[in-house]
Amino acid sequence: MLSFFSLTHAEHAPSHEFFRGQLVPCHETPARAEQVHQALQAAGHRIETTGFPDSRALLGQVHAERYLRFLQGAWADWLARDPANAARQPWPSTWPVRTLRSDLEPREFSARLGLYSFDNGTPLSAGSWAAAKAGCDAALAGAQALAGGARAAFVASRPPGHHAGPDFMGGYCFLNQAAVAAQALRAQGHARVAVLDVDYHHGNGTQAIFYARSDVFFASLHGDPSTEYPFFLGHADEEGEGEGRGFNLNLPLPAGTPAERWFAALEQACARLQALNASALVVSLGLDTFEGDPISKFKLARADFGRLGARLAGLGLPTLFVLEGGYATADLGLNAVAVLDGFEREGGR
Amino acid sequence: MLSFFSLTHAEHAPSHEFFRGQLVPCHETPARAEQVHQALQAAGHRIETTGFPDSRALLGQVHAERYLRFLQGAWADWLARDPANAARQPWPSTWPVRTLRSDLEPREFSARLGLYSFDNGTPLSAGSWAAAKAGCDAALAGAQALAGGARAAFVASRPPGHHAGPDFMGGYCFLNQAAVAAQALRAQGHARVAVLDVDYHHGNGTQAIFYARSDVFFASLHGDPSTEYPFFLGHADEEGEGEGRGFNLNLPLPAGTPAERWFAALEQACARLQALNASALVVSLGLDTFEGDPISKFKLARADFGRLGARLAGLGLPTLFVLEGGYATADLGLNAVAVLDGFEREGGR
Ligand SMILES: [Zn+2]
Ligand SMILES: [Zn+2]
Repeated sequence: MLSFFSLTHAEHAPSHEFFRGQLVPCHETPARAEQVHQALQAAGHRIETTGFPDSRALLGQVHAERYLRFLQGAWADWLARDPANAARQPWPSTWPVRTLRSDLEPREFSARLGLYSFDNGTPLSAGSWAAAKAGCDAALAGAQALAGGARAAFVASRPPGHHAGPDFMGGYCFLNQAAVAAQALRAQGHARVAVLDVDYHHGNGTQAIFYARSDVFFASLHGDPSTEYPFFLGHADEEGEGEGRGFNLNLPLPAGTPAERWFAALEQACARLQALNASALVVSLGLDTFEGDPISKFKLARADFGRLGARLAGLGLPTLFVLEGGYATADLGLNAVAVLDGFEREGGR
Repeated sequence: MLSFFSLTHAEHAPSHEFFRGQLVPCHETPARAEQVHQALQAAGHRIETTGFPDSRALLGQVHAERYLRFLQGAWADWLARDPANAARQPWPSTWPVRTLRSDLEPREFSARLGLYSFDNGTPLSAGSWAAAKAGCDAALAGAQALAGGARAAFVASRPPGHHAGPDFMGGYCFLNQAAVAAQALRAQGHARVAVLDVDYHHGNGTQAIFYARSDVFFASLHGDPSTEYPFFLGHADEEGEGEGRGFNLNLPLPAGTPAERWFAALEQACARLQALNASALVVSLGLDTFEGDPISKFKLARADFGRLGARLAGLGLPTLFVLEGGYATADLGLNAVAVLDGFEREGGR
């Protein structure tokens, strides 16, 4: 499958993250993308690494401009505060929840970081903007490949994007590549685009971006948020609002869900997106549903990823796969390739 | 001045806090209250330490029941997750900001801690509920002393309370003693109670609790939130809402504000509370406006605290002082006594 891979991903390389209050080495590493790159090459998939279009205008359609301005300038702001910060990661410390204001941007750096985030698990480094922006450019390149007649394409970007909302980062995500891809497909003339999120974690950012819209249908299979990150979104009663009512489908599943139950939920999502006549599909391809994932609790085996690809090919839609999570690094590339190969085996070439 | 001091404060004794992303020893320590206790004794003030009334019913009038239930059971929940947690502090990691839901309580412990907080700077320990609740009992005892005819009283409680909102902790605060005191004074028949917050940091919790009410006027002098904690509340344009419009007054001041400018702002607050005919006064007495405070940036000297006390005595109202912040521990007791002595010197006995 035609794949888009930005080498710039490697510029996002923070060393540590807070994981439930402990400072630990990052789970979301450059090695993840390198594994995927190598596996794609080994399996003979064609990989584009340069010449991507500029996604900046599309970014402004899915993210708030003040958030984009902050994120683009964040590392320079951090250094301006103290040159020694070059060797330090910044952390937010205060978040504007209920009764606190989000309309004013504080001058204090860590406060702005808190304004534009919903966790303290999204470490920023010097190249975070460059890497995330390049991932969005790759997503746009993938969408253009579909417009050019490709049946499917794979955007092998990192950092991931599906937790990044209209104006916040979170869950290792800064910019929402899947949302950019969906927006690009809409601009190409697809009247309704479906985003199917199969990451272990609910794609709260993508849901929030499209929650009031009927032209982008969002469906997600994920760990029940009452016990799994991101905790505060992803319940079954979230069906969209306003124009978007009926265009959001959450299928939360308990930790430990076996493959058969997971695939039954996938059928529900597929049935709905067909009923809604989506004419293009973006797949937020998180692979942390893998049985060997260190931070997740589903039990998909490698063969299940082939089955997933094959099932999605059966939908018969132009399909853009966008890499999201997946932290069993040594298996990540093989699992991704299993999805793509399963898709192509069913004629989705 | 008659003072109320709960020895239970010492049960709240976490070891570390996150301060702008670094794990550091707590600023808000049992030694703070001990210093105040010793200074009160040395200055000959009468101190009550036992026999306080139960503030539980009042707590339900200023905090959400689900928050109170969580906080009361939090340490037991934390231990139930893993007995080894007895030696560990829990931390939140995810906060329900914009587009995320606050209506459902996750089962995961750290997620519930995030639901009920707005920062990661409010460490919880085994005795946090007991200490905070005892502080509220002391505040109620102080309010009852006023009802019994005392001209003024001092509640020397810790942890502080003014950042604790309707359903969240934050800024070392769990339960809002000043709000409990104001509610108690209302129940005694005062038609309008004023809460004057002179802590260096804006009392966002107290403001939020009374923001839609006209029966409790909230006024605060504090460091400009665009650069100072709590960052997301405390601006001059926050005037109250609904019934409460006109009953909230914020006087943000820049870091480095000298005493004369600070006292000019105090005059504005005094003028307003007199114009609104408040018949009782609660003072959120933060002493981190002190020139020697390690985390704040105002420049009040010890003599200024005497002047503050004298000015407040001049209002001629039944007055309850409630201790809030102040982290120059060695000076804290002397600064508190300076306020009380200044008050009594002006006839406020
Ligand atoms: Zn994930
Ligand atoms: Zn303070």
